[in-house]
Amino acid sequence: MRLAVIPGDGIGPEVVAEALKVLGEVVPNAETTNYDLGASRWHATGELLPESVLGELRQHDAILLGAVGDPSVPSGILERGLLLRLRFELDHHVNLRPARLYPGVRGPLGDPGEIDMVVVREGTEGPYAGNGGLLRKDTEHEIATEVSLNTAFGIRRVVSDAFKRAEERPRKHLTLVHKTNVLEHAGSLWSRIVEEVSLEHPEVSVAYSHVDAATIHLVTDPGRFDVIVTDNLFGDIITDLAAAVTGGIGLAASGNLDITGRNPSMFEPVHGSAPDIAGQNLADPTAAVLSVSLLLDHLGEKEAARRIEASVAFDLATRDQASPGSTQAIGDRLAALVSSNARQAG
Amino acid sequence: MRLAVIPGDGIGPEVVAEALKVLGEVVPNAETTNYDLGASRWHATGELLPESVLGELRQHDAILLGAVGDPSVPSGILERGLLLRLRFELDHHVNLRPARLYPGVRGPLGDPGEIDMVVVREGTEGPYAGNGGLLRKDTEHEIATEVSLNTAFGIRRVVSDAFKRAEERPRKHLTLVHKTNVLEHAGSLWSRIVEEVSLEHPEVSVAYSHVDAATIHLVTDPGRFDVIVTDNLFGDIITDLAAAVTGGIGLAASGNLDITGRNPSMFEPVHGSAPDIAGQNLADPTAAVLSVSLLLDHLGEKEAARRIEASVAFDLATRDQASPGSTQAIGDRLAALVSSNARQAG
Ligand SMILES: CC(C)[C@H](C(=O)O)[C@@H](O)C(=O)O
Ligand SMILES: CC(C)[C@H](C(=O)O)[C@@H](O)C(=O)O
Repeated sequence: MRLAVIPGDGIGPEVVAEALKVLGEVVPNAETTNYDLGASRWHATGELLPESVLGELRQHDAILLGAVGDPSVPSGILERGLLLRLRFELDHHVNLRPARLYPGVRGPLGDPGEIDMVVVREGTEGPYAGNGGLLRKDTEHEIATEVSLNTAFGIRRVVSDAFKRAEERPRKHLTLVHKTNVLEHAGSLWSRIVEEVSLEHPEVSVAYSHVDAATIHLVTDPGRFDVIVTDNLFGDIITDLAAAVTGGIGLAASGNLDITGRNPSMFEPVHGSAPDIAGQNLADPTAAVLSVSLLLDHLGEKEAARRIEASVAFDLATRDQASPGSTQAIGDRLAALVSSNARQAG
Repeated sequence: MRLAVIPGDGIGPEVVAEALKVLGEVVPNAETTNYDLGASRWHATGELLPESVLGELRQHDAILLGAVGDPSVPSGILERGLLLRLRFELDHHVNLRPARLYPGVRGPLGDPGEIDMVVVREGTEGPYAGNGGLLRKDTEHEIATEVSLNTAFGIRRVVSDAFKRAEERPRKHLTLVHKTNVLEHAGSLWSRIVEEVSLEHPEVSVAYSHVDAATIHLVTDPGRFDVIVTDNLFGDIITDLAAAVTGGIGLAASGNLDITGRNPSMFEPVHGSAPDIAGQNLADPTAAVLSVSLLLDHLGEKEAARRIEASVAFDLATRDQASPGSTQAIGDRLAALVSSNARQAG
């Protein structure tokens, strides 16, 4: 297993170190190569994602990213020049974001019952296409446009993926989240494709929710959701909310998948680089560890993936929520749990 | 005071009746004209908003709308043909949506502290401009576009309005919500205008939040928000969430304002027509009553507006939350409270 690792900025390197420690317990011979990308590199060289690095990244089975970003870099530079560029260059069309309320974790909703959903967010089109512009800049007649581009090809591949995931889950339920009553054209295309693909998956029950109503359901009745499939921007918004109601982005993992396997997929915690607590052994590496679980699952190492997730679940259920321990202590605990799970399984 | 009333469908007529009952206590001589628009008219005649009706609506000081919609009407028809058409024809550029957690009301967040915010949502442009299309429909090469149109003119007028509202509030705080790191062009225009207008309001402190992060804050720390100014689509999403965390859309009022006064502004509860409980005297008319308070405030009847809001606050603090009473009972209570408040004040 050849992994490219982008530790990134802030707490990125710290949480990645623990994630790799845990990985080592299930895949002892993984070969990792570090790539220095993010705020420091941009400051030092002006580079965001050199072609040569992109070429090397492509040679790996998967990419693990910690977090990039720093207040010293103008907003948008790293997002568009590095994070989104990776998603577009590597055709990461399925942006996979599970949101599960683990036993022992208290979110802001008190006791909302079971929450266990997976959001399949489209990752390569919609309003993220970068298609827009300014006219008459800096005059009172200035106009700015942003064009959401949606293709049958692009939608069908993520909708198919979402249905397959729904089919494998106990509840076999899929919700399309969009705003079809206002975004008539994109909404029509998404709806028609969901309807078409649903014919191939008669066991999956299908629901629809407008994105505004979905935010209400996410705080009043989140248990209703199983698999959600949605557009790039709506997915961005509702996955942050879904993470918040399941204990915060500190626990949320994500995968940016090219499900054709042509390009390496990339796995990353949803949280940012948190420069305020960087370098102090304070960050919770759980989301990075869960990202490794997604990575292994994607590479076909289902058993190892499950073992890591089970260890995280056990740790979350038993840890002292008020003081869960240092970055390293949590990483050590998770590594020990994974290793003892391995011995039991073996 | 000449009011156009659109009772609409489902629970619309029921909640409007109570709202007018309460209005009668503060403005006994308001002249109201009913307009039959919504699902039933569309079914009966195919009409959504005839030009003649639009012309008559324009002759009023304000419009009160109950709710429109019915599952028997295909999604999008009434939304685009009636609700959005009214907003665009009557230039309702300031979509005003207060979200306050009244004492006694329990939302899904348990005890989140004080929540008292006003969202100023742009109402006439952005992704709601209806600018988009389909290419190669029903082929595998189909493409759908949606164009977000943003003008300096359109943004400046709502941003100015939001700053003025912030200046009049104790905390004098304004948050721009957008997604500037991805929607580069629209984001740049919104940011620059907020910066410009802020120079005219040095007492107002300004913050920025990406829309995805804003959804997290709305469930983990909603008290941080005072005035939010945002784009049409982001405003649609976060106002539903803001309503949810302050007790639900059953309590949320809104105003669609033409702040130039050229066209009548329109006031409506945020909730829908709830056909499942229609005609049973079960709907809570509180949001409709609060919409009347916004209407009076907009027409300069500040004292009457405050009196209604105070009566609602008192009723919410003292009502039996589990069984607040029938539609009519709540309306009667609120009318009595308003009338006794009036006597005390007079
Ligand atoms: C950093 C930003 C470009 C990104 C996005 O908008 O997709 C982030 O919010 C996310 O959800 O991964
Ligand atoms: C009904 C729909 C067109 C409308 C909107 O999207 O603005 C509604 O959700 C609202 O918030 O008033």
